[in-house]
Amino acid sequence: MLFAISSPGNSLDAALLDKINNKTKPLGALGQLEQLALQIGRIQKTLTPALANPQILVFAGDHGAAKAGVSAYPQDVTWQMVENFLAGGAAINVFAKHNGLGLRVIDAGVAHDFGARDGLVDAKVGPGTRNYIEEPAMSAHECAAALVKGAEIARKLADEGCNVLGFGEMGIGNTASASLITHTLTGTSLEDCVGRGTGLDDAGLARKRDLLAQAVARAALPADADPMNVLAEFGGFEIVMMAGAMLGAAERGMTLLIDGFIVTSALLVASRIAPAIRDYCVFCHRSAEPGHLAQLAELHADPLIDLGLRLGEGTGAALAWPLVSAAVAFLNEMASFASAGVSEKG
Amino acid sequence: MLFAISSPGNSLDAALLDKINNKTKPLGALGQLEQLALQIGRIQKTLTPALANPQILVFAGDHGAAKAGVSAYPQDVTWQMVENFLAGGAAINVFAKHNGLGLRVIDAGVAHDFGARDGLVDAKVGPGTRNYIEEPAMSAHECAAALVKGAEIARKLADEGCNVLGFGEMGIGNTASASLITHTLTGTSLEDCVGRGTGLDDAGLARKRDLLAQAVARAALPADADPMNVLAEFGGFEIVMMAGAMLGAAERGMTLLIDGFIVTSALLVASRIAPAIRDYCVFCHRSAEPGHLAQLAELHADPLIDLGLRLGEGTGAALAWPLVSAAVAFLNEMASFASAGVSEKG
Repeated sequence: MLFAISSPGNSLDAALLDKINNKTKPLGALGQLEQLALQIGRIQKTLTPALANPQILVFAGDHGAAKAGVSAYPQDVTWQMVENFLAGGAAINVFAKHNGLGLRVIDAGVAHDFGARDGLVDAKVGPGTRNYIEEPAMSAHECAAALVKGAEIARKLADEGCNVLGFGEMGIGNTASASLITHTLTGTSLEDCVGRGTGLDDAGLARKRDLLAQAVARAALPADADPMNVLAEFGGFEIVMMAGAMLGAAERGMTLLIDGFIVTSALLVASRIAPAIRDYCVFCHRSAEPGHLAQLAELHADPLIDLGLRLGEGTGAALAWPLVSAAVAFLNEMASFASAGVSEKG
Repeated sequence: MLFAISSPGNSLDAALLDKINNKTKPLGALGQLEQLALQIGRIQKTLTPALANPQILVFAGDHGAAKAGVSAYPQDVTWQMVENFLAGGAAINVFAKHNGLGLRVIDAGVAHDFGARDGLVDAKVGPGTRNYIEEPAMSAHECAAALVKGAEIARKLADEGCNVLGFGEMGIGNTASASLITHTLTGTSLEDCVGRGTGLDDAGLARKRDLLAQAVARAALPADADPMNVLAEFGGFEIVMMAGAMLGAAERGMTLLIDGFIVTSALLVASRIAPAIRDYCVFCHRSAEPGHLAQLAELHADPLIDLGLRLGEGTGAALAWPLVSAAVAFLNEMASFASAGVSEKG
């Protein structure tokens, strides 16, 4: 399972920085947007990048551990929210539409039969994972299949002319899965990786920590575990498929919009499989889930917005998107000191 | 000079919170956007607010003190940048267009004769202020005239159906003016209120601090100085006119998008004239200018974005605008648990 992902390289840096620095503004005055313009110029290997046909992909899957009590919500909410996505009523529908992003919902492994539905991509690997407190969440074969399906989805979108993909997810119990992945891959204590998810109270949080400690003890993974083994032990199908889609997207030179805690757990795995993927990622928001901190530190990432969001669905990516496209707009459209006849610094 | 500004009040809070909390998302999961939706519902006194015909106003003015060396750029850059605004080449042009905001440029007091120009509102009070290191920047009469003109501009826009105003400015030397206003009104040390502006080096920063200390000593204002006196001593015409426009806008129940350090200095003054104006303000970005911290603390404000911007022109307001409109969109467009048939927390 190889992905041909190479770093975009910095051969255009001098020219990109020259273009940025000659815009009619004080040096560096657009802060993080200047770094973003540089990054997207690098990714697209041009001084005039263009972001085309941006899409949010929402991967949905169920978790066997949900019934053990790792979430404040019943497992049925996963398929009910997929129905909400299909009906256009969820937060991600509103924000994607509001900001001009396409939206596709992918059934990676929901424990529900949707039948053939407009707007739903059927990529179901199975009707939810098994309970990782007792056994691996999925087989190595299922894990590989989910990864490949994800990559195929991204490649197909690239073929259709999309060069920006935002990632989102839905799956009751999936902050627990993300906590286990983050703990295993970064070595951060389980306590620092586990949060309230959709809103556990203190007793619920203590119970979630206890259950996840049992899962860690059962799996007994080594510190240098193969990332695919980590995914098979603890993953949700939606997390594995996202990792595959990220890898497929980076391979095709797309810009990746990274959402919060669960999406970043998929990226952590993807970055162990192909480290150069990091250079294609725009970190969109800082999640209120505590484990996100450990992920961002590991990936040396400084997200664009920090609004106390903890919703998932790709909402952070959809909300940050106008900042990303604004960075490209200033690079392409602003006048230079010379073209505008404005005096430079004395 | 009275403005009839009353607090929007909280009579609809219970109904607004009920609506927000019944959206298909965990309680509080949209973080600051939920507070924003509540605030705009309050301002417009409705459960279904609508943001109409949003405009960015860029107020431009020159500062007599600029020639004394408080800025890294020559004073001519003020009128040159106004020309750049009129030609569509500045950052605020790109961001306003990108995010669907109207843009108006107001000559509040630039030391340049533009003649009659499409897209430029001639509200010139004078050809730049006098040098506040040696004498008051403007007379009490000029100060009152600038404030009234600003209020008239906002009222006219309200009459035209606009209910959201973003504020921006251009004026070489105006971070110095904002520093003096912030120091005088908040009591924060001058050192903590003075920054590099458009990019002073260490020697330039030391010189700026020294010059501003001279201005403070000359004016010798009492700690409880009348805000209009503070404006007349240290203001730029663009800052005074912005304060007037803010007051006129709040009086008409508009939502105010507050940009960075210089715009917030105008708001500080406006909030001393009519404290209830605070409730109409959305704080858009955290400026890299150090004095912005003191202003935000005084106004108990937590801005939406923090991207290291230090450009002015209203760019922070234009960039944050999609977040503001997204908050209203989720309030109006998202499904509720009941309408979507999604189970609530267990």
